[in-house]
Amino acid sequence: MFKTIEWKNNCVRLIDQIRLPEKEVYVDCRNYEEVAQAIEKMIVRGAPAIGVTAAFGVALGAIKSKANNIESFKAEFDKICTRLSLTRPTAVNLFWAIKRMEEVFNRNKNKSIDDLKKLLLKEAKEIYKEDIQINKSIGMFGKRLINDGDIVLTHCNAGALATAGFGTALGVIRASVRDGKKLTVFAGETRPFLQGARLTTWELLKDRIPVTLICDNMVGYFMKKGEISKVIVGADRIALNGDVANKIGTYNIAVLAKEHNIPFYVAAPISTIDPRIKNGSSIPIEERKPSEVTTIRGNSIAPKEVKAKNPAFDITSNHYITGIITEKGILRKPFSLSIKRILKKSHYER
Amino acid sequence: MFKTIEWKNNCVRLIDQIRLPEKEVYVDCRNYEEVAQAIEKMIVRGAPAIGVTAAFGVALGAIKSKANNIESFKAEFDKICTRLSLTRPTAVNLFWAIKRMEEVFNRNKNKSIDDLKKLLLKEAKEIYKEDIQINKSIGMFGKRLINDGDIVLTHCNAGALATAGFGTALGVIRASVRDGKKLTVFAGETRPFLQGARLTTWELLKDRIPVTLICDNMVGYFMKKGEISKVIVGADRIALNGDVANKIGTYNIAVLAKEHNIPFYVAAPISTIDPRIKNGSSIPIEERKPSEVTTIRGNSIAPKEVKAKNPAFDITSNHYITGIITEKGILRKPFSLSIKRILKKSHYER
Repeated sequence: MFKTIEWKNNCVRLIDQIRLPEKEVYVDCRNYEEVAQAIEKMIVRGAPAIGVTAAFGVALGAIKSKANNIESFKAEFDKICTRLSLTRPTAVNLFWAIKRMEEVFNRNKNKSIDDLKKLLLKEAKEIYKEDIQINKSIGMFGKRLINDGDIVLTHCNAGALATAGFGTALGVIRASVRDGKKLTVFAGETRPFLQGARLTTWELLKDRIPVTLICDNMVGYFMKKGEISKVIVGADRIALNGDVANKIGTYNIAVLAKEHNIPFYVAAPISTIDPRIKNGSSIPIEERKPSEVTTIRGNSIAPKEVKAKNPAFDITSNHYITGIITEKGILRKPFSLSIKRILKKSHYER
Repeated sequence: MFKTIEWKNNCVRLIDQIRLPEKEVYVDCRNYEEVAQAIEKMIVRGAPAIGVTAAFGVALGAIKSKANNIESFKAEFDKICTRLSLTRPTAVNLFWAIKRMEEVFNRNKNKSIDDLKKLLLKEAKEIYKEDIQINKSIGMFGKRLINDGDIVLTHCNAGALATAGFGTALGVIRASVRDGKKLTVFAGETRPFLQGARLTTWELLKDRIPVTLICDNMVGYFMKKGEISKVIVGADRIALNGDVANKIGTYNIAVLAKEHNIPFYVAAPISTIDPRIKNGSSIPIEERKPSEVTTIRGNSIAPKEVKAKNPAFDITSNHYITGIITEKGILRKPFSLSIKRILKKSHYER
C-alpha cells in the first residue's frame, strides 16, 4: 500500500498527487519551506493530510534549526508556524495542527532545545497516528449508514490520499466493503484539479472497489435515473451550525441530492469543526489561479485571452446535510446542538 | 466573421469545431459519407447546425449520384437519408431537416433527375438561410427578457457555431448587446467535450462580449453569491409538454436555478419541438465513448482501467423552465398549451 505522508530520514516524504495516476513517485521535503510549497502546489492536498503534513513541517523546521538559545529558537519556531499557516486558507485542519504544535512548545518552553525538538516530532507523529485511528472510527460509525447494493457518489478525494491513511468519505466505503457489503462508487471528476478522476479512482481501483467515473455535470442525470442512492463527501471546515466548506462542486451535489431525496453525508474528523466560526459565511474561500481552469494538466482548453474564475471551495448550508460522520459518532440535526455536545465531550476526553 | 457551414465548390465546408479555439480551420466534405462522419465526430455540432449540415449532406449525396433512372436515384437518395439520420440520435433537427429534403423529393418525383438535384440543393440552401433568420427572430424576442447589467449563464455552445449563424441562446445575448445593453456572460466549460470553454468563449471574444469561464461545478457557488441573474441555454429536442433535452449538465443548472429563484430560459427554433414526443422520458439520449470522459483532448486524466459513463444529454422537466424563446415568441407555462398553439400557428403559416 502507498503512504500519503511519511517521516523518513529527517524528511517529510509525500506521494506526489500532481503526478498521479500516471506515476507513483515520492517527494522528499528537506526543510519546512519545501513542505510549505508542497502544500501550496497541492503535491499534498485534502484537509486532514494538510494538517498532518503541516505538523511534520513544523517539526522538521524545528529540528533543522541551528538556534542555540531558547529565544532565537522560539522566534524561528514562530516564523515556521506562520509560513506554514499561510499556505492555504480554507481547510481548518492546517491551523488546528499548527496550534497543537504551538501548544507543545508553550507547555515545554522550560525544557532544552533538544528536548523540545524531540517533543515536537513526537507530537507530529502522534497527530499522524491519531488521524489514521480517527478515520477508522469514522468508517466504523459511517458503515452503519451503508446498505448492501448502495451506489455512493463521492466528490473530490476524501480518501487515504487526503489523510494520513484510510480516508474519511472513502474510509466509510472501505469499512463497508470490509464488512462484506457490495457497493459501487460514482466518482465525480472534480474539475479543475480532477481529484476524483485522478485520485479517487486510483485509490479505489487499488482496493478493487468498483468505481465509475462521471463528469461533475452528470450528477443530476444519474440521480434522476435513480442510479445514486447516497452521497458521502469530506469537509475542509465545518461551522458551529453545521455549514460545511468542501471542494468546489459539493454545493451543486447537495442541492441536487435534496431535490432527489437522496441522503447527503459529510465525513470528517472533529478537528474539522472550527469553534470560532458560527456559520459558513465566515469561512474564507481560497481563490486559485484562473490558469487551473483554462488549462488541464498543462494543456490549454480555452482561448488564451479568456477570463476565468477559480474558487477552490464552496459552502453547503446545514439544511442540505443529512448527517456528519465523525470519529465520535454521527451528528444529526439540529447541528448547532449536536456539534456543541460533541465538542464538549471531546474537550472532556482530552 | 467565420462561417460554421457553407456550400462551396460542390462541397459542404465546415469549420472544424474539434480544433477550435487553437486553430480556425475548415474541412471540405466531398461526399455524403464525409458529411455523416463530420457529424458523428462532432466536427460540426449543435442541433440547428446538425440539421443544416444534414440537409446539405443529402443535397451533396444526390448531386454526386450517377443514377440514370428515377428508381435507382430514389434508392440512392433513401440510402443517403438513412445514413445521415443514423449519425446522432438526440437532436431532432437532424431528422426534421432530412424529412424536409424527403418531402421535396416526393413532391417532385415526376421531374427529371437534374431538376430534382437542383431542387434539393435549393431546399438545403433555404433551410440554411431560414436558420439564420430564425435565430435573429429568437434574438429579437429574447432580448426583451434581458436587463441592463444582467449576468447570464449559458451552457455548452448555443451560438453561431451551433447554427447556420447568429445562434439561439447566444443570439439572444447578441441581440441584447446590439441594443446597447451591458451584460456579462458566464460560460460553463461543459465537460466532457468543453464546448463552453472552447467554443462559446471563442465566439464571444470575437464579438467583444464580456465572458467569464467557469467549471460546471461552480454554478451553485456563483448563484448563491448572487452573481448569476439569468440562465439561457439551447435545446436538442423539446417534447410536447415542454420537457427539454439539451447538453449534459443542463439539468444540474436548471435545478440550481430553481433553488436560487433564477429565471431559466431555453432558446430554440420551433423545429426543435418534436410533435411525436409527449414528454422527455421518450427522448433517446446518446451515450458516447467513455474515453471522452477519461481523456481531455487526447490526454489521459484517469487510470487507464477505470470505468466511465458518458451520457451526452439530459432531460430538464418543464417545471424548471421559465420560458422557451422561439422565433414566433416566448412560450410560457403551461407549455403543453403554448406549444400546441405555436405548432398550429406554424403549420398554418407554412
